[in-house]
Amino acid sequence: MFMNPTLYFDDLKVGETFTTGSKTISLEEIIAFAKEYDPQPMHTDVEAAKHSFFGTLVGSGLHTLTTTMRLVVDAKPFGETPLVGMQVDEVRLLSPLYPNSTLSASLEILELTPSSKGGRGYVRAKITTRSGDKELATQKWLMLMPNRPTK
Amino acid sequence: MFMNPTLYFDDLKVGETFTTGSKTISLEEIIAFAKEYDPQPMHTDVEAAKHSFFGTLVGSGLHTLTTTMRLVVDAKPFGETPLVGMQVDEVRLLSPLYPNSTLSASLEILELTPSSKGGRGYVRAKITTRSGDKELATQKWLMLMPNRPTK
Repeated sequence: MFMNPTLYFDDLKVGETFTTGSKTISLEEIIAFAKEYDPQPMHTDVEAAKHSFFGTLVGSGLHTLTTTMRLVVDAKPFGETPLVGMQVDEVRLLSPLYPNSTLSASLEILELTPSSKGGRGYVRAKITTRSGDKELATQKWLMLMPNRPTK
Repeated sequence: MFMNPTLYFDDLKVGETFTTGSKTISLEEIIAFAKEYDPQPMHTDVEAAKHSFFGTLVGSGLHTLTTTMRLVVDAKPFGETPLVGMQVDEVRLLSPLYPNSTLSASLEILELTPSSKGGRGYVRAKITTRSGDKELATQKWLMLMPNRPTK
């Protein structure tokens, strides 16, 4: 995985975009995830899912979101500076997660707000999760990032 | 687990509240979850976490959110009617997830909007996740629910 240099709040610019690697999610992974975190028949039972809202087995929306988090963490958009999430807004589940989809994500910086406490700032970013050309989910994260240490 | 009768959009009232069971999350579970979905040292490495933002190992905020989903699904607030999530808004991570916390959640119906297509409606609910008296997270879900089938 490509490793970015370690970045601080001061280094970021509105409009910058980071892209992640990708991950393919199998039917078996969809069912195993759902049994653990969202055990509803539309996500865990191929036969029952045929009569469900989606007409076929689809993954939990939460599976799309957890996969997105892992893709972003692995991409290390800010290098070794940790991603400290404070808030998530406007999560939109746009398309269902079908088995054998290959997910990737991008992160675009929307807003940079220095903290009144100094030494840190808030980063608002839009995260978009795609399978091929199709958008599966969008969301906005508010993260806390330190300023570059002074000597 | 207490099983509610199966409910439809028509049966719900603004202000109704449902409560879930509880789940205790061990240090080992926090580390295993983070290795899978949010592999950052503050969530996976007890020693490294001492020098991290929180000063001690804490669970991923995403672990609080996935545990909440499981608690709500198990509580079957609408009986056998599935929980079909469309949107999540205003996720606020208020306190970190410390090892051996016992989480429970409540769901309060905020808003009921019939769909212009008929036969279904949108349910906006606030979900609050607690450990004892402490609020760990709040969020708002928008779900799609069918109307009661007509004869």
